[in-house]
Amino acid sequence: MANITDRRPIQPILGNVLIQAEKEQCKFVATDLEVQLSASIGNPADQEGQCTVPGRKLFDICRALPEGSQIQIHKDGEKVTVRAGNARFTLHTLPAETFPYLSISKPACSGSCLAPALRSALNTAATAMAQNDARFFLNGILLEIQDNLLRCVSTDGHRLAMMEIPFDVLGDTPLYQGILPRKAVIELLRLLASNNGEATLMLAETSFVLEQDDLQFSCKLIDAKYPEYRRVIPENHPHLAEVDRQELKNALQQVSILTADKNPATRMTLKPEQMILRAHNEEQEDAEIGFPINFSGPTMEIAFNIHYLLDTTQIFAEETLTMRLRDGGSSAVFTSAGQDTPLYVVMPMRI
Amino acid sequence: MANITDRRPIQPILGNVLIQAEKEQCKFVATDLEVQLSASIGNPADQEGQCTVPGRKLFDICRALPEGSQIQIHKDGEKVTVRAGNARFTLHTLPAETFPYLSISKPACSGSCLAPALRSALNTAATAMAQNDARFFLNGILLEIQDNLLRCVSTDGHRLAMMEIPFDVLGDTPLYQGILPRKAVIELLRLLASNNGEATLMLAETSFVLEQDDLQFSCKLIDAKYPEYRRVIPENHPHLAEVDRQELKNALQQVSILTADKNPATRMTLKPEQMILRAHNEEQEDAEIGFPINFSGPTMEIAFNIHYLLDTTQIFAEETLTMRLRDGGSSAVFTSAGQDTPLYVVMPMRI
Repeated sequence: MANITDRRPIQPILGNVLIQAEKEQCKFVATDLEVQLSASIGNPADQEGQCTVPGRKLFDICRALPEGSQIQIHKDGEKVTVRAGNARFTLHTLPAETFPYLSISKPACSGSCLAPALRSALNTAATAMAQNDARFFLNGILLEIQDNLLRCVSTDGHRLAMMEIPFDVLGDTPLYQGILPRKAVIELLRLLASNNGEATLMLAETSFVLEQDDLQFSCKLIDAKYPEYRRVIPENHPHLAEVDRQELKNALQQVSILTADKNPATRMTLKPEQMILRAHNEEQEDAEIGFPINFSGPTMEIAFNIHYLLDTTQIFAEETLTMRLRDGGSSAVFTSAGQDTPLYVVMPMRI
Repeated sequence: MANITDRRPIQPILGNVLIQAEKEQCKFVATDLEVQLSASIGNPADQEGQCTVPGRKLFDICRALPEGSQIQIHKDGEKVTVRAGNARFTLHTLPAETFPYLSISKPACSGSCLAPALRSALNTAATAMAQNDARFFLNGILLEIQDNLLRCVSTDGHRLAMMEIPFDVLGDTPLYQGILPRKAVIELLRLLASNNGEATLMLAETSFVLEQDDLQFSCKLIDAKYPEYRRVIPENHPHLAEVDRQELKNALQQVSILTADKNPATRMTLKPEQMILRAHNEEQEDAEIGFPINFSGPTMEIAFNIHYLLDTTQIFAEETLTMRLRDGGSSAVFTSAGQDTPLYVVMPMRI
């Protein structure tokens, strides 16, 4: 939670974490008004009550204490005292009654999936998510649930990334759509990294809740309709290239050293048995590298933003990539050989 | 060398590395006009000659190539071509004749020492080195060679750090003193980190040269006389405390969470069998922690800048620290139990 309380709070209370002591457990909540994280630990309290304390400081105290330390938190009027071993800390507090919870709507769709799969799908879509785009609905990831599949989609207008994972819908939902904002995506990727089990989602029109273990994450969704992304995915690109992912990565990394800063383009030549990548920069320096591929089409030249191509190495894990093409003026569609998803569409550059 | 060529060069040539192809070897040189690094590799050249190419780009190319790649560098008029495997890079070049070598004086003192020991001594002294001080001679480390000992000393006016290591002087030198500038110290610490063998030093009044393996590092020394540092080291502090280093570190880290940002002080109480550390900040938060020590003196209270105390954990590696004291208004002298060096003197704070 210290991550959330650290975000230069616009109100002092947002720098604090709420502690609710109950008979059976203690609950902790932090929010920055956009995302909210709460967690319960099983320790019973001597007396019920609540308080707020600076989140980062409480975290630093816990971290600095020796492994296995027992911590006592005691509220007395305006002061909160934290004791552990031979150490005592007195922390500043703000009234718990003023803590600004996020309002969460009743879910329209609930269900569960494997946390590593969800992380992988969000990670794939995070690649093509826009940043500070005036089309604010692009600064996030579309979540689409349909037929026991959860689909994560993103596009910044230059490329599109999509991944589907199995999702056990509770009850009956024909189609759910919601747009997860960028900040929530980054927080979720962090949370899911430590979960190898299941995650439960509760999705409403305006809010998103994820539960895993004793942790609850919630956020507001972006209030907009996502564009018709399926129009961007070409269905009948006739030419097919099979490319070794590691070889493509090495070649892209080498060529990228001499791309122009302002126009980081690479010109790709596809021949039946070879791919050649070329780049040059403002200082008249240039690079060229060729490596073997299998390509079904005629010799073709097509230019791309090299950073978009390098992102394929983030999205795909399999050894062989499939690249579907039409001509030098149309997009390229990347998939792992033999799989429908993840799918990555990159528009060509005009140079 | 890419580290050196990357420093926002004030002249374009400083962003380049000089390559000298000779019959027996290839030599590479980089400089930022303050420090200079040169290295030789045993590969013979087909033809003698020299050129300069962008340092960072050549490094990035080498790094991006597969392990074990053979690299060919070829100069043709205004262009330098780098080839490896199926890749070709054309790099921009500047005339080798304009490369600004550092001028190195004839050494007044030469000798050798173990690289890990030198690194340890520089590291100790780096702790108390000043930064951007108007007394420019404090922004570095005094090197003093006497009686086959190399002494590294630094002080920023609030504390002093010193460490001596064995040094094999070549020939006869009664006393050598020179001030290594901060930038050179940082570069040397980096270079020495990868050397478990010997280092050879060649020290002149105005310049410093270190040789290890096929690498030569050189720099200008700070042109000034270092202050009489021995006056700062008290010789007869009567009271002695023995402190467990790890316990002190834990306590300092805990207390430091609630020190004031502008005045990061901790008040230390020494009793015969206990040390108590206290701190408070602008928000009226406070911390207190006690732990066992052995102390020979009367109960005493003394305040320190907590960051200066935390630096003891960087300087000393042994389990037990010895702390010599006079009273609450005098400095504290830290050593490892039973050793004269490293030595660390910290002035008290008035609070």
